[in-house]
Amino acid sequence: MTAPRFELTSEQKLVEDIKEWSGNKHIGDDCAILPGGQLVTADALVEGTHFITEEIGYENLGWKAAAVNLSDIAAMGGRPRHLVVSLTLPSNVKQTSVRQLMTSLIGCAKTYRANVVGGDLTAGPILVINVTVIGDVHESGCLTRSGAQVGDVVVVTGDFGASRAGLELVGKSKAEQEKYPYVWERHVKPKPRLCESWSLIRKTGNRGSLMDASDGLADALIQIARASQVGIEVNKSDIPIHPETVTVAKAYGADPVDWAFYGGEDYELVGTLPEKVWQGWKSNENNPFTEIGRVDSSAGVFLKTNEKRIALDLKRSFQHWTDL
Amino acid sequence: MTAPRFELTSEQKLVEDIKEWSGNKHIGDDCAILPGGQLVTADALVEGTHFITEEIGYENLGWKAAAVNLSDIAAMGGRPRHLVVSLTLPSNVKQTSVRQLMTSLIGCAKTYRANVVGGDLTAGPILVINVTVIGDVHESGCLTRSGAQVGDVVVVTGDFGASRAGLELVGKSKAEQEKYPYVWERHVKPKPRLCESWSLIRKTGNRGSLMDASDGLADALIQIARASQVGIEVNKSDIPIHPETVTVAKAYGADPVDWAFYGGEDYELVGTLPEKVWQGWKSNENNPFTEIGRVDSSAGVFLKTNEKRIALDLKRSFQHWTDL
Repeated sequence: MTAPRFELTSEQKLVEDIKEWSGNKHIGDDCAILPGGQLVTADALVEGTHFITEEIGYENLGWKAAAVNLSDIAAMGGRPRHLVVSLTLPSNVKQTSVRQLMTSLIGCAKTYRANVVGGDLTAGPILVINVTVIGDVHESGCLTRSGAQVGDVVVVTGDFGASRAGLELVGKSKAEQEKYPYVWERHVKPKPRLCESWSLIRKTGNRGSLMDASDGLADALIQIARASQVGIEVNKSDIPIHPETVTVAKAYGADPVDWAFYGGEDYELVGTLPEKVWQGWKSNENNPFTEIGRVDSSAGVFLKTNEKRIALDLKRSFQHWTDL
Repeated sequence: MTAPRFELTSEQKLVEDIKEWSGNKHIGDDCAILPGGQLVTADALVEGTHFITEEIGYENLGWKAAAVNLSDIAAMGGRPRHLVVSLTLPSNVKQTSVRQLMTSLIGCAKTYRANVVGGDLTAGPILVINVTVIGDVHESGCLTRSGAQVGDVVVVTGDFGASRAGLELVGKSKAEQEKYPYVWERHVKPKPRLCESWSLIRKTGNRGSLMDASDGLADALIQIARASQVGIEVNKSDIPIHPETVTVAKAYGADPVDWAFYGGEDYELVGTLPEKVWQGWKSNENNPFTEIGRVDSSAGVFLKTNEKRIALDLKRSFQHWTDL
């Protein structure tokens, strides 16, 4: 087996640096695993980089700030418990807006049985919402990016490209946004796939791999392949894409498959599990996962179509990091 | 006894709102206390609000971002364990600068036996460093702002106003900053008073009160009085002020006592403990605390001088929040 080589983005290079400086080899997964079995994750939403406040609105923003962090707990199959919220608020943000943002953030946390326990308020020129979530490893096990093995089945939840389709509607008329409610909701109010992650971990325990596709399906597949030192092949015809995503892509002259692989912010789960476990589970009507490919010993991640086999390129994948 | 009334700043009003929205009455202390005895705190340092990058430098900034958060753990007598760091980086920040910042931040954490376990990197128009610290409640107990009782002795670590004196040197020549090394260091590289807090909690356990004076001595005294529903009187002549702070204040035409009360960012501890415990400890040469006053049943916080008794006014105290 040839050890696969993947080029790193500048964000990933910096994460590699920080691992070295801190002497902590475990940095780089969706959550840190603390001694004793706790999970910790933090993600900041930065005005101008991740959102335009007037476009998304305070209520959706509050929900999203919690949801993207809860999604990182889902990415390891964990149970979220406590949220800590740091708000940097420009002076023109009104108390009613802070109320909308915070009640929605608290509401999202409570939907998934977690609570806001504290935080920090500070003034600043732009709105920054940093959420830290502390959770527990699931009693059945914990899945990371590095657990994929040759022969594993590659599975995903939901569908891909919908958030990217919703992003296309940002700045468009309200009528246009309401015309495509599914993709708009997927963009402004993503749902962390916690129940789905628990159903997987109950089936497979520690044996397999998992992450969330916050930076696109291509990125998720490449991260798993890289961390696990394996190759992956997925079938183009198996990639789940919602009909509305296809409609919006066509309306805006884009390729829905491109959005699925490189759009980002879908917050779906991408994982791998043993063939045997999958065979016993795949026909169960409560199974929320779809099979899209196989783990192999090749040196990369490939998309198989009827005609050809295309290597997926990390450089194209969505990053909130394009400037560095 | 008359219940003291203190006017709230806009930051404190917002914290009260968030307590109501979240249904969590415990929000508002230096750390959140989790079930099982963990402490969690988060503080963001925002470019332009808390620092000017060129003035403080990346190395000091990294140290300070860790130190101010470790100070919140010290404020409850806890033991810091894990740090999670969210960096929002402008595109012009070089890799060497990120290295200086992160190695210094990691170094500060390690000095106090804590480790950076994870975080988040994102691009943004200004530099924002959000640090979350997870710690453990000290085995001897946990002190909050609300534990002060009438008759308690009011004690503090170190000295006050030094960081404010250092702030005066920001933007001045390097020669001027080097002329006053003590106050400059206190401003750019504050030390969390962890050992001091542990020595207090070993003596007094859960009986007393504690916080850190991040927003000034006046603010700390008022917060303790408000949370504990007591009054406090401190003696002007007992307030520890470093000779260099006095020199800088004189050189810049300011009042060092004003800086001590309202300057902020000293990160000294302010607490109260029973008279009996203090009497048995105060003459011990390893005791890092200084007595500055008494807890009483009056309706406010007062500064006693030879001539008069002045009520301390929260509105004057230092807040990173002046715009809201």
